[in-house]
Amino acid sequence: MKEQLIRETPAKVYLVLFSLSLLLNIFFFYQQFFSQSHHLSPRLGSTVSDLSWTRHAAEEAEAVAAISCSSHGRAYVDGVLDNGQPACECNTCYTGIDCSVLLSNCSADVEGGDPLFLEPYWMQQAAKSAVVLSGWHRMSYATTDRFKSLELEKNIRRLHAAVGNAITDGKHLVFGTGSTQLLNALVYALSPENASSPSSVVATIPYYSMYKEQTELFNGRDYEWEGATAKWRNSNKTNFIEFVTSPNNPDCLLCDSVLGGSSVIYDHAYYWPHFTAIPKPADGDVMIFTVSKLSGHAGSRFGWAFIKDENVYNKVSNYLQYNSMGASRETQSRLLNYVKVISDEIGSNADIFEFGFNKLRKRWQRLQALVNSSSRFSLQQLSTQYCTYFKKIRDPSPAYAWLKCENEEDTDCAEVLMKGGIISRGGTNFGASTRYTRLSLLKTDDHFEMLLQKLKPLVACSDENSSEMISSF
Amino acid sequence: MKEQLIRETPAKVYLVLFSLSLLLNIFFFYQQFFSQSHHLSPRLGSTVSDLSWTRHAAEEAEAVAAISCSSHGRAYVDGVLDNGQPACECNTCYTGIDCSVLLSNCSADVEGGDPLFLEPYWMQQAAKSAVVLSGWHRMSYATTDRFKSLELEKNIRRLHAAVGNAITDGKHLVFGTGSTQLLNALVYALSPENASSPSSVVATIPYYSMYKEQTELFNGRDYEWEGATAKWRNSNKTNFIEFVTSPNNPDCLLCDSVLGGSSVIYDHAYYWPHFTAIPKPADGDVMIFTVSKLSGHAGSRFGWAFIKDENVYNKVSNYLQYNSMGASRETQSRLLNYVKVISDEIGSNADIFEFGFNKLRKRWQRLQALVNSSSRFSLQQLSTQYCTYFKKIRDPSPAYAWLKCENEEDTDCAEVLMKGGIISRGGTNFGASTRYTRLSLLKTDDHFEMLLQKLKPLVACSDENSSEMISSF
Repeated sequence: MKEQLIRETPAKVYLVLFSLSLLLNIFFFYQQFFSQSHHLSPRLGSTVSDLSWTRHAAEEAEAVAAISCSSHGRAYVDGVLDNGQPACECNTCYTGIDCSVLLSNCSADVEGGDPLFLEPYWMQQAAKSAVVLSGWHRMSYATTDRFKSLELEKNIRRLHAAVGNAITDGKHLVFGTGSTQLLNALVYALSPENASSPSSVVATIPYYSMYKEQTELFNGRDYEWEGATAKWRNSNKTNFIEFVTSPNNPDCLLCDSVLGGSSVIYDHAYYWPHFTAIPKPADGDVMIFTVSKLSGHAGSRFGWAFIKDENVYNKVSNYLQYNSMGASRETQSRLLNYVKVISDEIGSNADIFEFGFNKLRKRWQRLQALVNSSSRFSLQQLSTQYCTYFKKIRDPSPAYAWLKCENEEDTDCAEVLMKGGIISRGGTNFGASTRYTRLSLLKTDDHFEMLLQKLKPLVACSDENSSEMISSF
Repeated sequence: MKEQLIRETPAKVYLVLFSLSLLLNIFFFYQQFFSQSHHLSPRLGSTVSDLSWTRHAAEEAEAVAAISCSSHGRAYVDGVLDNGQPACECNTCYTGIDCSVLLSNCSADVEGGDPLFLEPYWMQQAAKSAVVLSGWHRMSYATTDRFKSLELEKNIRRLHAAVGNAITDGKHLVFGTGSTQLLNALVYALSPENASSPSSVVATIPYYSMYKEQTELFNGRDYEWEGATAKWRNSNKTNFIEFVTSPNNPDCLLCDSVLGGSSVIYDHAYYWPHFTAIPKPADGDVMIFTVSKLSGHAGSRFGWAFIKDENVYNKVSNYLQYNSMGASRETQSRLLNYVKVISDEIGSNADIFEFGFNKLRKRWQRLQALVNSSSRFSLQQLSTQYCTYFKKIRDPSPAYAWLKCENEEDTDCAEVLMKGGIISRGGTNFGASTRYTRLSLLKTDDHFEMLLQKLKPLVACSDENSSEMISSF
């Protein structure tokens, strides 16, 4: 039958088929070996040739990202090498090559403000948030606006406008190596030179310890740490520089100036919809923000400040020039990308504020339910509030729990927790009593789960009757 | 003839040919549309699947790098957008969409120390120096050694050992946001607290102005700028902190401590084979280096210091924590890559020191020949010297020319040059006379060529007879 078919099909037909197939062979051969096949780049909206100089680095990044760390850690391209490959870096309490081993007797470390609760967000936005830098990227001291990226400035202003958390028009913008650098830069800039006495730097208890520590350490002749605002309420002194953290670190309440002087530094690190309702845009003459608590990139060391007064702005710029000649240009480049992603996704199902708010609200609710199940501890009182960003009344979702030990004998609350396997930041760090301690709710799920696990028996300890209730957490 | 051939070739042969061709087409078709073609990643030494989340960013980076700026500029992924595309950023004196237009009456700007002479090196090493970062890369405050990348530390020590420019064993290493940040951190750390009088910060004329400006601006209670070492040579004062820049900025001579006190900060920013012979490894108790003058990445804001004394190290670390919580982690990640490339290529034909040395030596020779062709100006005297790195006697290749105006009426040398269209950094910035000015030899070829072009008539001005000779440059 087959033989017959061959014989009956004219040679010409085979020749035509062969010729067509050969043409197709030639086309594929060219495609395979000679063509720089063109792909559409959605970000640029134009076609570019297949990858050349970026390929190896991109492959390496993907290979390292694909290393499995059991959801309890992650590997980085710059990690410590183990047999030539970066090894998994595990979350606290996890160990093993792939972070799959839970350490026994490991303390819950909720001491620091590491904003790792946003890490899963960026993993979900992998393609949008990848950053590729050439070896010759921004080698110069100067970028588009001296030490500052103009595009980053534009996009930061755009983001504040979209979120509605700050009025930035008519205010100068400076970039710092973290908001940390900006704190002292502003203290310097707000202190009059050669005044008869140094400016008094103050804050309201409980306050973020950095204000005190930094002011004392840099110890400039024109300023001095003068402690709590409470001490100065009825004084005749005038030359105050007051730090106002709103929402406050550690208790997450919205705050305003206590002394009402002219030199107020508003630290709005946490004034984003992850952490608080936004009742109205902030409009201070000096306002600090940080990417650490916006996108979660604490390691990038990048913060910014809006400054109304031109002289103050010039002094801060000068300080930043002589301190570090501005913030890293590749950091600015990377964060430009993230600030854009955050703005672009507002209101979408990849809204970072929605993501952060939901995560922190759930954590707060679970912690609150556990703590309220006995009388041993109490938490700061936070209430629902109308939020102009979400356009609704929303639950609290604080970055920190400000825990108080209520039992008479528990005079050092951080110590009590430490004995129970929880590393917290004791009240004295914030100028407050040892009866208080701060628990970070910002870290990974692993950290938070471990916190609940360790807190459960401590809460139960106060009241034998409540143990049944607690066992349900 | 053709018809005859078809008829004579048996149909079977065509069928076989067609079948083979068809098989080949099936193979190509699969390759083209279904295969996750595997590529070898030389950096990881393993195969990875084709790119997913890095692809768009890589394509964008390549597309932007491919924008033509006529060798007089470059476009960056974070550049100011022009119709949605980053625009060319042109070298001084060039303009136009593709930087192809030379501005008339444009001054040669050789004021700053922008190390752009190394930009072509990194363009040549495009594939090796590409860096890809994920959105979740190093979000934490903590990296492999708190604020410091362990791999970067290891590779910096390895590089110094390979170059032979510093003894690092037994010394602690700190990372700063540029060496700029480390200067004041070290002044702070070397100043005893609560001493009866503040430490005196000094340097030898001509000195890098940052030492004075920074010390005066930060104005800590425990230290004070006390000017030139010459003033204190025969004094009884003891509590000096002496900055020694070697090779020196601006005159590029190797230097040592003048006062010989115990607190010396060796600023070895330029102690690399690009700029100077390396007669022996430096071995100071406090030594500062910066990536700006090693790889040319000034915009990265990254420097480091080796510190022998543990107490000084602890104080510096403390300062850095309260100033900025360390240097940007993505910067550390990027620079790890570059430090590795530099080490790996030592002695190869991609040796950055060979590249930098050759470029600067040629520039120096051309400038020297021009300046020496008349008596109007003179340059610092630099001699050939044995270099342990190149293992030979080598010519000078300084980062800067320290130019002196020799004509009696040319009392302000920077002013003389400015009138001739050259922006330089006048002698008073370095504590020296206005008869001197500094010309940067570190910038792009465009900057250097413009400098020669503008200097030619000035040199000729002094001596009509020499004009013929000069026209040959």
